[in-house]
This record gives sequence, C-alpha cells and structure tokens, in this order.
Amino acid sequence: MTRIRTDLALEARELYSHHKDDMMGVESESHNENGMEITRVRITSPEGERKLGKAMGNYITIEAAAIKDRNPEYYELVSQNLSNELKSLLNLHNKSNILVVGLGNWNITPDSLGPKVVDRIMVTRHILKLIPEQVDERVQAVCAIAPGVLGITGMETGEIVKGIVDRVRPDVVIVIDALASRKTQRIGTTIQIADTGINPGSGIGNKRMGISEETLGVKTIAIGVPMVVYAHTIGRDSLEILIKEFSNQATPGTEFYKMLGSMQEADLDAMVSKVLSQGMGDLVVTPKEVDMLIDDISGILSDGLNLALHHNISLEESRRFMH
Amino acid sequence: MTRIRTDLALEARELYSHHKDDMMGVESESHNENGMEITRVRITSPEGERKLGKAMGNYITIEAAAIKDRNPEYYELVSQNLSNELKSLLNLHNKSNILVVGLGNWNITPDSLGPKVVDRIMVTRHILKLIPEQVDERVQAVCAIAPGVLGITGMETGEIVKGIVDRVRPDVVIVIDALASRKTQRIGTTIQIADTGINPGSGIGNKRMGISEETLGVKTIAIGVPMVVYAHTIGRDSLEILIKEFSNQATPGTEFYKMLGSMQEADLDAMVSKVLSQGMGDLVVTPKEVDMLIDDISGILSDGLNLALHHNISLEESRRFMH
Amino acid sequence: MTRIRTDLALEARELYSHHKDDMMGVESESHNENGMEITRVRITSPEGERKLGKAMGNYITIEAAAIKDRNPEYYELVSQNLSNELKSLLNLHNKSNILVVGLGNWNITPDSLGPKVVDRIMVTRHILKLIPEQVDERVQAVCAIAPGVLGITGMETGEIVKGIVDRVRPDVVIVIDALASRKTQRIGTTIQIADTGINPGSGIGNKRMGISEETLGVKTIAIGVPMVVYAHTIGRDSLEILIKEFSNQATPGTEFYKMLGSMQEADLDAMVSKVLSQGMGDLVVTPKEVDMLIDDISGILSDGLNLALHHNISLEESRRFMH
Amino acid sequence: MTRIRTDLALEARELYSHHKDDMMGVESESHNENGMEITRVRITSPEGERKLGKAMGNYITIEAAAIKDRNPEYYELVSQNLSNELKSLLNLHNKSNILVVGLGNWNITPDSLGPKVVDRIMVTRHILKLIPEQVDERVQAVCAIAPGVLGITGMETGEIVKGIVDRVRPDVVIVIDALASRKTQRIGTTIQIADTGINPGSGIGNKRMGISEETLGVKTIAIGVPMVVYAHTIGRDSLEILIKEFSNQATPGTEFYKMLGSMQEADLDAMVSKVLSQGMGDLVVTPKEVDMLIDDISGILSDGLNLALHHNISLEESRRFMH
Repeated sequence: MTRIRTDLALEARELYSHHKDDMMGVESESHNENGMEITRVRITSPEGERKLGKAMGNYITIEAAAIKDRNPEYYELVSQNLSNELKSLLNLHNKSNILVVGLGNWNITPDSLGPKVVDRIMVTRHILKLIPEQVDERVQAVCAIAPGVLGITGMETGEIVKGIVDRVRPDVVIVIDALASRKTQRIGTTIQIADTGINPGSGIGNKRMGISEETLGVKTIAIGVPMVVYAHTIGRDSLEILIKEFSNQATPGTEFYKMLGSMQEADLDAMVSKVLSQGMGDLVVTPKEVDMLIDDISGILSDGLNLALHHNISLEESRRFMH
Repeated sequence: MTRIRTDLALEARELYSHHKDDMMGVESESHNENGMEITRVRITSPEGERKLGKAMGNYITIEAAAIKDRNPEYYELVSQNLSNELKSLLNLHNKSNILVVGLGNWNITPDSLGPKVVDRIMVTRHILKLIPEQVDERVQAVCAIAPGVLGITGMETGEIVKGIVDRVRPDVVIVIDALASRKTQRIGTTIQIADTGINPGSGIGNKRMGISEETLGVKTIAIGVPMVVYAHTIGRDSLEILIKEFSNQATPGTEFYKMLGSMQEADLDAMVSKVLSQGMGDLVVTPKEVDMLIDDISGILSDGLNLALHHNISLEESRRFMH
Repeated sequence: MTRIRTDLALEARELYSHHKDDMMGVESESHNENGMEITRVRITSPEGERKLGKAMGNYITIEAAAIKDRNPEYYELVSQNLSNELKSLLNLHNKSNILVVGLGNWNITPDSLGPKVVDRIMVTRHILKLIPEQVDERVQAVCAIAPGVLGITGMETGEIVKGIVDRVRPDVVIVIDALASRKTQRIGTTIQIADTGINPGSGIGNKRMGISEETLGVKTIAIGVPMVVYAHTIGRDSLEILIKEFSNQATPGTEFYKMLGSMQEADLDAMVSKVLSQGMGDLVVTPKEVDMLIDDISGILSDGLNLALHHNISLEESRRFMH
Repeated sequence: MTRIRTDLALEARELYSHHKDDMMGVESESHNENGMEITRVRITSPEGERKLGKAMGNYITIEAAAIKDRNPEYYELVSQNLSNELKSLLNLHNKSNILVVGLGNWNITPDSLGPKVVDRIMVTRHILKLIPEQVDERVQAVCAIAPGVLGITGMETGEIVKGIVDRVRPDVVIVIDALASRKTQRIGTTIQIADTGINPGSGIGNKRMGISEETLGVKTIAIGVPMVVYAHTIGRDSLEILIKEFSNQATPGTEFYKMLGSMQEADLDAMVSKVLSQGMGDLVVTPKEVDMLIDDISGILSDGLNLALHHNISLEESRRFMH
C-alpha cells in the first residue's frame, strides 16, 4: 500500500494503473475544451471503489493549467465550464432550494477554500422568503454556511450539516473543500466535481462522518480544488524517478538490478521520513503565494456556482448582486 | 412610544420609570462588588413584559466601568464575577453538554462579539468523544459555533441553531451577542446575562426566530455586551437635557412653560431625524477604538465562560489549553 | 469657539457663515455634474485661513450622495470625476515619479481608508526600474506606502514620509486620509481634494508634523473622505434644531425669548457632554456597515488614482494589472 | 554548485563540510542550554564568506526544538535566551534609540513574520518625546515599522529603511525576517541572530539593497526564523539518502558503484525538477498549521526583544504595556 495520498479520482486511477485502458470497475475518458482538459472518471463497482479508494460515482475533473497566467478572461471561461458541468449534474427544476457548504478552517490558509467560496456566493433564500415580489423568477433559493472544523466546533461537520439539512430541507447540497493532489502543477488549477459527496478519509482535514446523499438524504455534490501536495509525495516521486533512471541503465541479472527490483514501498517511505521531521502536523508543499491562489480560485468557483444555481444569470448580474 | 432603543433590561426599566420603587411585574435590586455594580432585574408577569418590551425572566447586569482602564487584573475579576453568575444560573451537573453560539456578523466590527468569543472558547466535546482517557474529569463537553447572520447565510440563525441542537442534543445553550445600550459609558463595559435567551427584536441584528428554551427545547442563556448606542439616542438625550434645563428655569403658566409641556416624543424624534440622514443603514455611536474594545471584552467573556463551564479549572489552565 | 469639528473646508465655510456670499479671504463656487455636486473653496488670505481653521489653498469637494445606492456604474463615474480633478491639479509631465501615502491605522476600521487605498494602487516604479522594456510608455513611476500611525510606529508619520521623500525623490506626493465631517450623509460619499497637503490638527488621527509642500519640498496633494461624524456634533446639531424651532415660535421680548438668545456655545457643549461619557477616546458616529463602506470608497479612490496617475489607462487595464 | 538553499549560516556550514573541524575562515562552537542548542558560527575571512555564501560576521543560532510542544513556560525560556544573546550583541547604553524593522509581506503567511513581530513590539519613542515624565528610566526609545516588500511599495525596502534611518537617527537597527532552512524540523523552532544585517540574496523575498551597517551607517542586527524549506530541498535530500543507502551496499568496482559515483549535482536537480512543476513561483514546504506557528514564534521574538531593549523590564510588565 502506497503512502502517496491524493484526493483526485483522476490521480488515484493513474497511481493504480499507468495503462490508459480501463480497469474493471473504472471507466474514464478525456477531452480538451477551451484550453482545459476535462476528464470523466466513473467508478462503477465495489471493485473499482476498493482499487481507487474512492466511493462509487462520477468524478469530473477540469484541469485549467493556464489559471497560473492570471488572465481574467480565462478565469471566466473556467467558471463557465464549471457551471456547465454543474448544471448537467444538478439538473435543477424551477424553484430549487440549494445549500452550499464551505468545508475547512478559515484560519489555515490552504484549508480556507470552502469558507472563501461561501463568502462570495449569491445568497438569496431569505430574500425569496421575505420579499419574493422583489426577486425575478430566474433566481433560485440559495443558502450557504461555513460550519468550521471539528477542532474549532467540537462537532463533526457532518453532524452540523445533517442538523441544518433536516431543518432547512434543501433539494441539493453542494460541499466545497480544499484537496490534496499528487502533482504540484494541479495546485489551484484543477477542479474536481463529484456526485459522491465527501466520504470519510478524503479532504485534507478530518471528516469522519460522510457528507453525502447517504448521510444527508438529498443529492450531494462535492467540488474540490487541490491546494497542497503532501511533502512526502515530493520525496517519493523524486526517488521513483531516480530508480527508474537507474533501472534503464542497469544490466539485468546484476547485483544492482536485483537491488533495484527489491526496493519496497516501505523502504522508500522510510527514506523520505528521514528527510521530513515529525511532530509538527502534516508537512505540505504549496506555492509561496498560496494566499493569492486561494483568492483567485475561490472567485472562479463562486462565479461558476452563481452561474449554475440560477437560471440565465450573467456574471455581470451576479457580481452586481454581490456588491 | 419612544424610539430610544436599548437591549438592556436595566435601561428599559429606567426608561419606563425613574422611580427606584418596583413597578408591577418588575423587581430589581443592585449591589456593589469588587468595583462592579451588579443589578438583578426580574420580569415576573406579562404586564412587566409589555412595559419593558422584554421577555419574562431574569436579567443580571454586571457594570464594570473600570474596564476602560485596561487593567488585566480587573479583567480577571470581571471574568470571575461573570463565571459566578453563570454557574448559579446554569447549575451544571457532572457530564454536561454545552453548546455556545456566537451570534453576529464577523465582517461588521461592532457586531463581531459573538464570533470572537466563540474563537476563544475551550472546545472539548470532540476530545471527550474520541480520546476520553486523555481528559480529566473536571472537563465538560463544550461545543461552539458562530453560524453567521441572515444576510450571509440566507437562513434564520434560529433555524440553524435549532437544527444543530436537535442533532447534537446539548443540555444547555449559551448565546453570545452584541447589544445596543442607551448610555455610551456602557459600551464594552457592561455584561447582561439573561435566562430568557434571545427573543425577536432584541440584539443589534435581525433575528426573527427566537433562540430560547421555548424554540430550542433546552435551557438557553443569553450573554450580551453593548457595543453601540444608536445615534438617534444621543440626539434625543441631548434634547431632553435642554428641555429639562429650560423647564427648571421657566415660570409655570407662561407661554414658554406650556410649549415645553406640549413637546411630544414624535416632535423630538423628528428633530433628531433632521440631523441624521437616512439611507445608510443604522447610524451608531462607538468609541473609535471599538476594534480593541471588542478584543478585550471578548477575552473577558471567554475567560468567564471557560471558568464557568468546567469544574475547578483555573484561568491559567484554560489559557494553556487554548494555546 | 465651537467644538463642532470638521475636516471639510466646505463645512468649515458653512459653519462660519450661512450666507452664500463670499467672505473676505474665502472664495467658493459649486456646480452639478453627472449627479455629483462639485464645490471649489479657495482660501486666499491669512484671514480666510484663520476664519476657517484651514490652510490657504484650493479645496475641491465631490459630493456623490448616490454612492449609497451601491451601483457600480455610478462608482466608475465618481472615479472618473476624481481622476479629472486630480489630473488638472497634478499636471503631470511624461516620466513623473509619484509617491502615494495611505495615512491612518489599519486596525481601526474607520481610520483604515488610507492603507486600503494604497493596497489597490497600481504600483509600477520598481518595474520601470528593473524591466523598463516590458512597460509601455503610458505608465508612470508610482510607489506607495502605508506607514502606520504614531502610536504604532513611535515615529511621527511626517518624519517617516519626509525620510522616504528625501531618498526616493518623487515629483509629487499624494496623501490619502480618513476625515471627520459634520453631516452624516457625507460619510463615505464625499471626497475632498486639497493642494495644501495635511496640516497639523486636521484628519481624525494625531499628525503633529504637517505633510505638505512646505515640509516635504515637493507638491503635495491630500485626498480625504469623511468616515465618521463626532458624536458631539450629533448632539449639538439636535440642540440647535430645537432652539431654532423654539425661536420661531417665541414672542420677542418674553422671558423665553431672552433665554433662547442667552444660550452660549459652552452651555450647549456642556449639555451634550452630559450625554456622552468620557474616558473611552473619541465617540464617533458611523453607519453600522462602515467596514463595507470603506471597501467601496477605497475602490473608488484607487480607481480614480490609477486613471489619473498614468496616461490613457482604462479602468479595465488598471484592474487587470492589479490582478 | 548545489541548488539547495538555506538562510542559516549553521546549515551553510554543514552543507559545505560534514567535518566538525573548523574550515579556514569559519569558526563554530555549540553548547546546550535549557533544552536549546546554541551554535555560534563566525565567518572571519573573505574565503569563509565565499565558501558559505554568507557575509563575514557572527551568527548565533538558537535551536529550540521543543517549541513544537507549545508549552508557554518553554516559550518564556526561549524569549529569555534570545534576550540574553541580543543584549550581549547590542550592548545598549542608557538612552538608546532603537528602530525595529519587520521585513516581509503580511499577505503571504510564511513571509509575515516580520510584520507580526513589529505588531507586538513595545513602541515607546513617541511617549518619551511627548510625555517623558510619565515614563520610568528603564524604558528606552523604541520605534518600529513594517515597510512592506518591493512588489507592494515599488521601492526597495533598503531605500525606505535608509530614508527613515537618516531622518530618525537610531543608534541601532534590528531587522526581523522569515528565512528558509534546509531541514523541516527547524521551521518555526530555530532563531538566527546575525550582526551582519541582511545582505542581497538572503531571506525568502527579494531584497537587492542590503540592510546592514554598511548601507545604513549604524549597527544593524538581523533576527530570522525559518518558516519554509524549499520543496526542491526535500526532493534532493530524499535522493541523497537513497544514493547513500545504495553506496553502502554496492561492491566497489562494479558498474553500479561507478554509476553512483558519477551522479552529478545537476543530474539530481534535474530529477527533482521533473517532480516540481514550474510557473507558480517558489514551491515551499510548510507545516499545514503555519498560520499558528507564525503566531507563536512572533510572540516569542517580540517578548525576547521587549526584554532585551529595555532595562530590567519583566515579561509581565511588557505585556501589560502592550495591552
């Protein structure tokens, strides 16, 4: 079992098999659109679930590498793409009630994505309730909350969300969370949308109780963006490149060749652990400018959500509303 | 009906009657302790409720004017006094579950008291659940949340709290809120503790659904501190001092004397409204340093809560825990 | 001498004389443009200086009352107007060096205007120095600093700015500061531009050493927006309305009439002081949403500055640059 | 030339030579005190300067690994140690003027150490100037500023500091900065004090003009704490452990042994670069809780400074002052 951790189904699939062919229980296809790579991974059986360590369901990944060029027009394209994907998953009828939940800890920069997105969501449910005559029919009832994390509230986030859902009875819940990926180039540039919700063990925080259709009783969509790579992954990937390099040069049958073949996952993990000291919580890799990356990507996500959740609302209109 | 607004039962009582004698349905008594004035107002009948515009129940007010001298030792005295009052109201048994709710909007400085207190509460419920063997028996199960306000979440705060209470089933709920008082000297220096919870119309935000034993089904204590005086109140109080001054000097029976007697509440309100322009939300009076006042008083409240909620915990211990 | 304080030359003029005719040493004229009232007050002699308590020079006031409707298009109009006024005062040649200084304390919300504007200024001086070939010729060399206040740095802001100016040698200095006005409707909606810089005693903080052409040796423009009204002013203005009302109704020659006439400034101040307690620093009136007002008006100011300081830069371009 | 970067003289020395014996031009000695390792590195010649890539002078390193246990008593010990080392370097006479400069960008969490320390410094210069009779003779004249970084101000930090120093004329300047180390266990736990000031190329930001006695004309002490390790370093260190492991097992003379010997720095760097994508600025490793680490260590540094800069001031007194 590898200790390389990723929250992206896309990367879990790559880790399990470098073959592009489908595995049993896992289907995937990719295409390019507007300078973004869109990949759909579908886990169709318990076998696929076990192999990838991810719940059965659909995972859509938008890889928008050009986000790092910080071009506002490209940002709008990404928001538009996100909105389109969301719309087809959500399939909202008129008069929908939507609850957006921003997971994560606002005091820890790379974990603050969820609360930051919630801050910029066009919240309308109360207006529709109190002064419906002032709202046009395109606007849906959206409410939003950033409940905090276990260490801050003393309550599992799943409990809090379940309590609110039972009271407020939305038609659909959308949870936003910061993720960990395997590749640094995906930090702040890749969006995963999953119809599986959040399941124990995923996400960079600790969320024991799932936040999914199974636990909440309503359709639950998870949207996540990798904000960190575990430092361990960097060490491991470096080692693997070196071993591959050696293997290419070594003569089969030699002492050396055998030694390379005998390296175990556990040996490699142990070497990396010598480099990374313990006792300070998880060591993560981020761009030094992660504060700015979070601002940018949370703007892209909230724009995408505002477009998707209401009918025929333009970005202009949603931004004016937020003002 | 006066437009002078106050969230303090103490001031509502003073506004209704300048006599120190008890009114029907309202009892009150005061004493001085450690440089603080402690007043207990008890509203005992629907008649008292109507007169004061406050729900029936007990209101304890700690006026700690010396807070403005910013002496850490005095701060600890205030926390200790608050803790004592809370303990006698709470009457906790061993193994209590307590939910602390910080009301208000963290983006509006004078309304951010609740969230700031919650930030400094010793949250323990999850530790008692996950690793009970590491916690000594003095520690109670405390959880806490700052749910935001209607304009941010689209949900009434009462709905959110009710949902969480139904799920988490605490024995008691404590809600913290910023208040408006009539007197500027009470800003940041006066603490009101009420066993009535929060009822519609009170508090400086909009909270239509009450947060009280009636709505939540468990004992609910409200703790509040005035952070603003409405600007209107300043104008009205200035006018009243002038009129009183004139009245003292005027000869009964004269044109002047009659004119003074004929002034209506509505006339005075209209004059003040000429001074205060409309259209920018409520105009409030605060010390310019309100950001620092909020920090200080939220420290005092959280210290008081940490002392009250656990058994025989010292301030030292609670601060070390928070670290 | 009145204790009503204002940082606006416009209001100082109104306080001194309700006549629209010009006073000796003070000229003024107003006109309406794009839904804004533009007033030019010119203090032309030491006599005018003494009467108004403001340094000799030009004060341009843009009253943009509709800012409170929060319409982004109107915001752009205001920025455009500000830019036009600034351009005619600055009269920049090609290749100008401009230093923007944001005065005030970022920890005190209504005093944080200056630092917030500086945060959004298009800073270019270093790019022009390090990679001039990548910058087009419309871009001027702009640098910016928010030096903090005396209580935070232990240094007079004027000393810090003088030190930097002597080193960096800009052609012009622009200082941004939060002001106090007399009228609440001017909070966050009125912009004063003065070619006098900042002089001791003005502004809501303490700035003993002036920041002006006299002290710095280069042209110094001050831009300010009222963010507070002193609570004292509210009380005083309420009293004056009441006295005026009484005066209109009183019969000349009566006891009452005489009493009204005998009211002194000092009497009125004393009455208001009874309402406002001492010992907590200045009591100020702000809209409760002052945090949001500051965000909006600092956006308007920085947009106006970005338009004025560079040649033929559009708002679009400056925002893209800031990204 | 290695691409492993460190701002610690201690680590630069280790990188250059694994021998504990002194190199030409570099002296060092270590001892243990109160659970901290104190190392003094002295670079005594241009040759030492070239080898280590650090300016000639004294570098004192306090390694306080137990900081990660978050024990307030240990924190005080570290502050005390820091104060002692500072005192012996500063050698302050009575009536000293000290300027503390917090370098770095407050918007980038791991770069915000300097501004955060400055926030908690006991600033007294203005009080001594304005009301000297209210200050006891132990208090020295301390002023402080966090000038921002080149990308925010458009001015080199060295220019700003030089301008202020020429105006304010302190006897000594102390600059605080976040550093990069080679070892993750040193993040937030190791303090370097250098009498060399800051020299071009050191520190995690870009500071072309030095901030040192040479440029400022007064004694300049630099205090820094590593807050990041470059991600590249993690990859490189992992590779080196693997190669060492292989070397221990390989038989001299074999193909394998020779291959290991032929690995170049550049080869290793190229492998790690395959793992770390480009285009997002520096990739750094931090504990996920770096926001909290920064709070803790900035408290330790400011306490140490407050103890060192004034005569016989206790931590209690300095904290009361800050209140």
